[in-house]
Amino acid sequence: MVKLPFITRNPNKVMEANAVLSRYGIELVPADLKKVELQSNRLEKIAAFAAKLAYRKLRKPVVVEDSGLFIDALSGFPGPYSSYVYKTIGLHGVLKLMEGVENRSARFKAVVALAYRGGVEIFTGVVHGRIAHEARGSAGFGFDPIFIPQGFSRTFAELGPGVKNKVSHRAKAFEKLGQWLQHNIDKLIPEL
Amino acid sequence: MVKLPFITRNPNKVMEANAVLSRYGIELVPADLKKVELQSNRLEKIAAFAAKLAYRKLRKPVVVEDSGLFIDALSGFPGPYSSYVYKTIGLHGVLKLMEGVENRSARFKAVVALAYRGGVEIFTGVVHGRIAHEARGSAGFGFDPIFIPQGFSRTFAELGPGVKNKVSHRAKAFEKLGQWLQHNIDKLIPEL
Repeated sequence: MVKLPFITRNPNKVMEANAVLSRYGIELVPADLKKVELQSNRLEKIAAFAAKLAYRKLRKPVVVEDSGLFIDALSGFPGPYSSYVYKTIGLHGVLKLMEGVENRSARFKAVVALAYRGGVEIFTGVVHGRIAHEARGSAGFGFDPIFIPQGFSRTFAELGPGVKNKVSHRAKAFEKLGQWLQHNIDKLIPEL
Repeated sequence: MVKLPFITRNPNKVMEANAVLSRYGIELVPADLKKVELQSNRLEKIAAFAAKLAYRKLRKPVVVEDSGLFIDALSGFPGPYSSYVYKTIGLHGVLKLMEGVENRSARFKAVVALAYRGGVEIFTGVVHGRIAHEARGSAGFGFDPIFIPQGFSRTFAELGPGVKNKVSHRAKAFEKLGQWLQHNIDKLIPEL
């Protein structure tokens, strides 16, 4: 098992990442380092900047993830500020904003950034779906109880980790990281 | 007139700042430099970081301002992300979130940061008030049409610049900067 530090304080993210990466012989280990996040509409920029700064501090390969829920009818809100919006107006607030709104299309997007001596590699994952009319289910975290992925009729919070870890934005992004590591682990070895 | 660069792309902010600073013989001149903003719940941190980076690039004294609308019933939302929230869900979205909400208390807060060789000076201004039940008026910008300052019955957008430039969060913060400069301009002179 190759271990890599993962800059996050969200244990759910660690679990979801490792559910995918264990198949590649990789384990992410939460690192107690403050993630420095920029304000930006682009998750790629936020994740790359945070990973670069973390690498400068740790001086070894490090993984960062940034994700968000983008709702079409709300011009992409809450997007990169999903975590702040979840903590302030919450599921209730987002459902209130969507009251009477017909177009319920939304997507979750995750961006994983790996910083190492060679630079920063970026891996993205997207899952399309729609905003439910009420919160349902208790698995997962964040906006999972109001997001119904395409091809399903239940929310991520109802579907649970079995489904989420197959079809989610995060699963897809970490899948790409796993594949990259499988072919490029030699690039990291001098620093591990 | 002492001129100082002001990192902003918002001409309204330049006008509001200079309406106050002209009394101190100071003029802020918009500088075409990208403001690097952190994600943080603290405007002070966002402004200080942006000012420090701008100073590193310009190598001369530079002013940055960060502000936000903090609504009590929404746990401070939209706070430091007011500009993003304005561009996505807008006045309409915030009014919708406040539908049926009795406690309409809110405050505007502005933080001005001046970076120079001696470090970063921070000046804050707050104006208390409440969220209107509908958007009214056309002066100002951002959330001005839905914010009624304490002691008034009309919104900032109805009251116009005459009142806003006396009682606003921004006016108060720049007033403090003006006073500081009046007593400390010699600290800046070597770099001007």
